[in-house]
Amino acid sequence: MISFELPQPYLLFLADSTEPGFAKTALGVKDWAPERCVGELHLPGGTVTTGLPELTPAQAYERGARALLVGVAAVGGALLPQWLSTLVEALEAGLDLISGLHTRLADVPLLAQTAARTGRRLFDIRVPPKGLPTGTGRRRTGKRLLTVGTDCALGKKYTALALTRAFRARGVSADFRATGQTGIMIAGAGIPIDAVVSDFVAGAAELLSPDNEADHWDVIEGQGSLFHPAYAGVSLGLLHGSQPDVLVLCHEAGRTVLLGQPGFRLPSLVEAIELNLLLARRVNPQVRCLAVSLNTSHLSEAAAYAAIRDVQEQLGLPCADPLRHPVQFAEVVETCLAYAPDLQLAPVLS
Amino acid sequence: MISFELPQPYLLFLADSTEPGFAKTALGVKDWAPERCVGELHLPGGTVTTGLPELTPAQAYERGARALLVGVAAVGGALLPQWLSTLVEALEAGLDLISGLHTRLADVPLLAQTAARTGRRLFDIRVPPKGLPTGTGRRRTGKRLLTVGTDCALGKKYTALALTRAFRARGVSADFRATGQTGIMIAGAGIPIDAVVSDFVAGAAELLSPDNEADHWDVIEGQGSLFHPAYAGVSLGLLHGSQPDVLVLCHEAGRTVLLGQPGFRLPSLVEAIELNLLLARRVNPQVRCLAVSLNTSHLSEAAAYAAIRDVQEQLGLPCADPLRHPVQFAEVVETCLAYAPDLQLAPVLS
Repeated sequence: MISFELPQPYLLFLADSTEPGFAKTALGVKDWAPERCVGELHLPGGTVTTGLPELTPAQAYERGARALLVGVAAVGGALLPQWLSTLVEALEAGLDLISGLHTRLADVPLLAQTAARTGRRLFDIRVPPKGLPTGTGRRRTGKRLLTVGTDCALGKKYTALALTRAFRARGVSADFRATGQTGIMIAGAGIPIDAVVSDFVAGAAELLSPDNEADHWDVIEGQGSLFHPAYAGVSLGLLHGSQPDVLVLCHEAGRTVLLGQPGFRLPSLVEAIELNLLLARRVNPQVRCLAVSLNTSHLSEAAAYAAIRDVQEQLGLPCADPLRHPVQFAEVVETCLAYAPDLQLAPVLS
Repeated sequence: MISFELPQPYLLFLADSTEPGFAKTALGVKDWAPERCVGELHLPGGTVTTGLPELTPAQAYERGARALLVGVAAVGGALLPQWLSTLVEALEAGLDLISGLHTRLADVPLLAQTAARTGRRLFDIRVPPKGLPTGTGRRRTGKRLLTVGTDCALGKKYTALALTRAFRARGVSADFRATGQTGIMIAGAGIPIDAVVSDFVAGAAELLSPDNEADHWDVIEGQGSLFHPAYAGVSLGLLHGSQPDVLVLCHEAGRTVLLGQPGFRLPSLVEAIELNLLLARRVNPQVRCLAVSLNTSHLSEAAAYAAIRDVQEQLGLPCADPLRHPVQFAEVVETCLAYAPDLQLAPVLS
């Protein structure tokens, strides 16, 4: 197994969570991959719900579930002792376990022993697969879109998911390619790119979006930002390995300095687009930035419209907030498709 | 231990090697850090020599040695069974073991057991330290010089070592900061940057060249190239984390395509300098490229001079081959020192 391929559908484990903020994983998976979810399971006292039916592990297995997905995070990402008997019950009912917690399932002796005894598997999504290759830069067939950002944590995963959905709604073959934990659980596959040893980041990204049909789109979840002093290297490895034909720049309206790094101002949208294109051309001279995804969640409706209009006028590119205006955002896909006929596989001699 | 701090001096283990090419590590350590070496040790049949006296582990310990350094590599980087009794003898004589082989010392049961029994330590230089932080971009005190390249494997380590030696010969306080295995053995400390998980590369580089006296120079061994489709992310993380005041560009005269990647032409020297400066300014707006280190090992003396003169005329920068013309190369240090008074710690608001 070089990239994760997760067993599914899932039974979403919510434990005793009463705060939706701690159940973001389960809620995100239910929102974006409802077809991969058959039910949810609480411990006594839990109140957060995805709206799916409450099922025991055995009931879930009967309805087709093949894995219990730990959909909650406690403070610090630990696996709590009071969850163990339920996780053991799931293994015994025939379900594999999937977790993105800091505590590795495989490091919990009771789970490791039970999995060995029952023949079930433990998937720790934070742990990158072994045997990743280094990058080659070889041009691959098919189309690739990568979401890039002016900063971390402003909507790159959400934008990629929304674009994938819009491509499919338009009847276009498209896959969301996940590079982070929640994305991997939603997609049921992927590579946690920021956990990969640096020498293999570009190679992992190449593996994640392999050769495909000429009219297929891989929509790749971006990570970090080329302007972030801690993570720019991750972003560049992912950019090179993804070999994108199209970039969509993600930004949060009004954010002016890096999150948690107030000494670093954010680049302008033009700077961000130009630097991403400059570096991406090394592996695909025809790369273009075709749209801006603007996170306006902190703004009023009027202010959001004004911010979007500003970007459109300044850059001459389509701009929308995928959460607030999904219909307008879906039009980005038309821009990609209109551009697509021009895409040709040129020899890489940047 | 967050970065390696190796016990020293070393007894250099050459096994039964008869080809200098397989003993590059031992020869490099002897060349660049003779003060860290007390002797060498062969197995029967070995002919490659560093010129140091042949010593048993016990004799070496008596002369002050505190570690046996595996200075040879077999094909594939394996640890060979016929070496084991000597390595055990070294542990029993009071020496720690240091190795950069693919086979980890700690994974060899006999060595792990002997080390535990004798209270000795096993240093696997390929394995990065645990507990590395993420980067912060905070400006640090002291001066930093990073060697960067148009490609891999053209002299970035050698250039950094030669510059460190030249700084010291000039009476300037300077440290070589190692980012690769051989460099770490030479320096006796360092972090194998390409083996670090991508999220922590910039943080590791920050750790490697901490705050220092205002007139101290850290001379940092570069890795990879921003133009390499497999390793550019490593290079960018190292560039950001190193926060260099000065770049020295390394190039091999006549190389026109990436080593092993013939589809990718090398950038021009101007392109390479401009891209490195553009990205480095994010963490240090005052960064400058002050010289070119030209590897002319494949050229005749006349052709080498011509190539060096071409670079000087084209770029208006000092250029020399540190191996062929060490005296001229040392003049690069004067350029750095002449520039240094202008260096000030400015707030990072690139």
